[in-house]
Amino acid sequence: MSSFQPVRGTRDLINQEAQLLSYVTAKARETAKLYGFKETFTPVIESFELLSAKSGEEIRQRMFIFDDLGGRKIALRPEFTASIARLATTALRNEPKPLRVFSTGSVYRYDEPQKGRYREFYQANYELMGSAKPEADAEVILLTNSMMKNVGLQGYAIKLGNVGVLKGIMSQDGVDEKTQNAVLQRMDKKEYEAALALVENEKCRTTLRSLIELKADTVFETVEKMKAQVAGYEKASTAVENLSAILNLVAESGCPIEAVDPAFARGLEYYTGMIFEVYVPELDIALGGGGRYDRLIEVFGGEPTPAVGVAHGLDRIMIAMQTQQTTLKAQIQKRVAVVPVKEEIKGEALKIAQQLREAGVSVEFEIMGRKMAKALEDADKRGADYAVIVGERELKEGKVTLKDLKKREQCEVSLDELSSKIKQTPLG
Amino acid sequence: MSSFQPVRGTRDLINQEAQLLSYVTAKARETAKLYGFKETFTPVIESFELLSAKSGEEIRQRMFIFDDLGGRKIALRPEFTASIARLATTALRNEPKPLRVFSTGSVYRYDEPQKGRYREFYQANYELMGSAKPEADAEVILLTNSMMKNVGLQGYAIKLGNVGVLKGIMSQDGVDEKTQNAVLQRMDKKEYEAALALVENEKCRTTLRSLIELKADTVFETVEKMKAQVAGYEKASTAVENLSAILNLVAESGCPIEAVDPAFARGLEYYTGMIFEVYVPELDIALGGGGRYDRLIEVFGGEPTPAVGVAHGLDRIMIAMQTQQTTLKAQIQKRVAVVPVKEEIKGEALKIAQQLREAGVSVEFEIMGRKMAKALEDADKRGADYAVIVGERELKEGKVTLKDLKKREQCEVSLDELSSKIKQTPLG
Repeated sequence: MSSFQPVRGTRDLINQEAQLLSYVTAKARETAKLYGFKETFTPVIESFELLSAKSGEEIRQRMFIFDDLGGRKIALRPEFTASIARLATTALRNEPKPLRVFSTGSVYRYDEPQKGRYREFYQANYELMGSAKPEADAEVILLTNSMMKNVGLQGYAIKLGNVGVLKGIMSQDGVDEKTQNAVLQRMDKKEYEAALALVENEKCRTTLRSLIELKADTVFETVEKMKAQVAGYEKASTAVENLSAILNLVAESGCPIEAVDPAFARGLEYYTGMIFEVYVPELDIALGGGGRYDRLIEVFGGEPTPAVGVAHGLDRIMIAMQTQQTTLKAQIQKRVAVVPVKEEIKGEALKIAQQLREAGVSVEFEIMGRKMAKALEDADKRGADYAVIVGERELKEGKVTLKDLKKREQCEVSLDELSSKIKQTPLG
Repeated sequence: MSSFQPVRGTRDLINQEAQLLSYVTAKARETAKLYGFKETFTPVIESFELLSAKSGEEIRQRMFIFDDLGGRKIALRPEFTASIARLATTALRNEPKPLRVFSTGSVYRYDEPQKGRYREFYQANYELMGSAKPEADAEVILLTNSMMKNVGLQGYAIKLGNVGVLKGIMSQDGVDEKTQNAVLQRMDKKEYEAALALVENEKCRTTLRSLIELKADTVFETVEKMKAQVAGYEKASTAVENLSAILNLVAESGCPIEAVDPAFARGLEYYTGMIFEVYVPELDIALGGGGRYDRLIEVFGGEPTPAVGVAHGLDRIMIAMQTQQTTLKAQIQKRVAVVPVKEEIKGEALKIAQQLREAGVSVEFEIMGRKMAKALEDADKRGADYAVIVGERELKEGKVTLKDLKKREQCEVSLDELSSKIKQTPLG
């Protein structure tokens, strides 16, 4: 066995797992189409300056950073949003708003590897730029709901909040931005006491604590109680109103919100408003999350542009699907092994393989030069549905033997009818 | 405008270009299925040790190398083959042979950026491991032919050779392996005199020159003349026989070979036998290329495993398609804008948008809160096919207004029939 292994925190996906990632990626792309998001490809490597501009200290410290041969400081992208915001200020700056941008691929964070947390992981990312309205927020939440439904997950739950509430309170009470970020980072980790300890202003601390400790029976009641707690805080009140509008729109459209969390914060510093995450009961890490970031595009030198986005963790969605034993609604494609009876007619057999492929049939051609019995045994082991046996005598009559490997039946079929016969026959 | 730009040699793909990459990638995946190749995902980052083990000095010097936070020397993959060979010696080592592995994604080489040459570029990669037979070589050539045909390219031509011929001659005449690699590297660049100057043995030089200068009218005649030129060189003769067998198999299966080049060499050191490339007349760089590498898996600590593979340059295929103005045979999906007549019924409108999406219709919901005329103008500008106008009066009757934006006609449609009406009506 080789001493070569994947780099720590990265992994290979083979067989069923690879098929699953491919399936989930295809579903993400389908979901993008349903919501009018256009696919865009941005580089895996970006300048460190770009990636560190607004993503937050925590992610900054966990980036893969290096110098290229030209001495440029570059890094592996830890997420897509910075790249898409860059695009919005350059190549896409003259496109009519709103912009709906979808990307999928690998992202990189230097975390301690554990279940569902890899250093190289896969995301599907959706950004909706140009609208400050709650219906834009609703769209990315509904899109997330559709994605979870489309991959076949059960019992998933969406948690909703608005970071503008906490930020609004702290701003009005004179907490500086750096401290605000430190407080939110701790609240993101549910280290509430540590978070409150950073706030000097007592009134502010009391208001924050009231939100942390707020209890209610329904999400709608939570929002009503939040309104009361932030009375007198102008921006925070507007943020609660916004949260209420989004919640109503989403709920009306048939997407249930499991929880509204008044003390909800997320790791990225650039969020300014609504934030949300989606969970399944089987996993304690979010399958996806996002929110509103109305300042980011400005930071990157663009026109002030309200924006909202979401990233779905494809690895985690895969784990959730595996845990729930979700069946893939993939189109079943028949697989055919083409086997020449003897060496001398492999050219003819290969020609037949080509004709089948041109008709859209998936063919594994016998390239090992094995004897018939061995080749058929192998085809069966690999899960092929049919074997096309190419023999000299049959070939003279323009025929081959078609063997159904599941039913263990065989018959002679003329070459003209071979592909349609294979495609039409129901699987045994 | 932003001062942030993509890192030199990398680029963003947006709009039509992104759609094209997505299309070409889908075709690569389809082609993999037709030939029974299973998709596999390997990391973009690998240990430098792995990537540099056998790829050749030239690529080694052009890698993006860095130390991760744990002090490991890692690099961005310059190609897929090393990763797949690693897999073959680890996770896939107990799978029955032959192995057919497909991967697609970005690879990295520190080249001077120019048309069709980027530092981050996209490949589709196919490896067929476990067979030393010419039909395995034929498969990857035929697969390449199918891919070119499937994306709709015209006039593409395949160039074929066998690096075992040159290697066999040099080995028999006592040229050491390091010099052999240096000779082949120069021949790859068509610097024939510089290549020959490295060979001290005069007989060897004469034989190599006779191959470089060999002229013939057909590819079959080329192979016959090669046989004559290498008479007395045992391994080289076997290599020409092998080339002949592959050529015949491929030609018989309806894939024309434009040229057999007796002095053909490729940049990667690991090739041991057949090599090939595919070109279109409009571009002087190969769209794809590959060959046989029977030693590589051993180098990585696996069992001796004959193998053959090919990588297709998706960026170059895209350029070729753009140059040839290839039309994409993509399924046309209708695009619908859903617009509420006024703010108060946006919740109802969003619900209708959701119902359409659940029926598989691509919907851009009006999230800008614009007036009807402006929203319709925008939908038209974006190329939407229909607008669904949600008004209060119609809604009470369970209806909406469906406007065909191309034909500029509109009618009232009941909500039950909306999605089927949109899906069934031919585009205006």
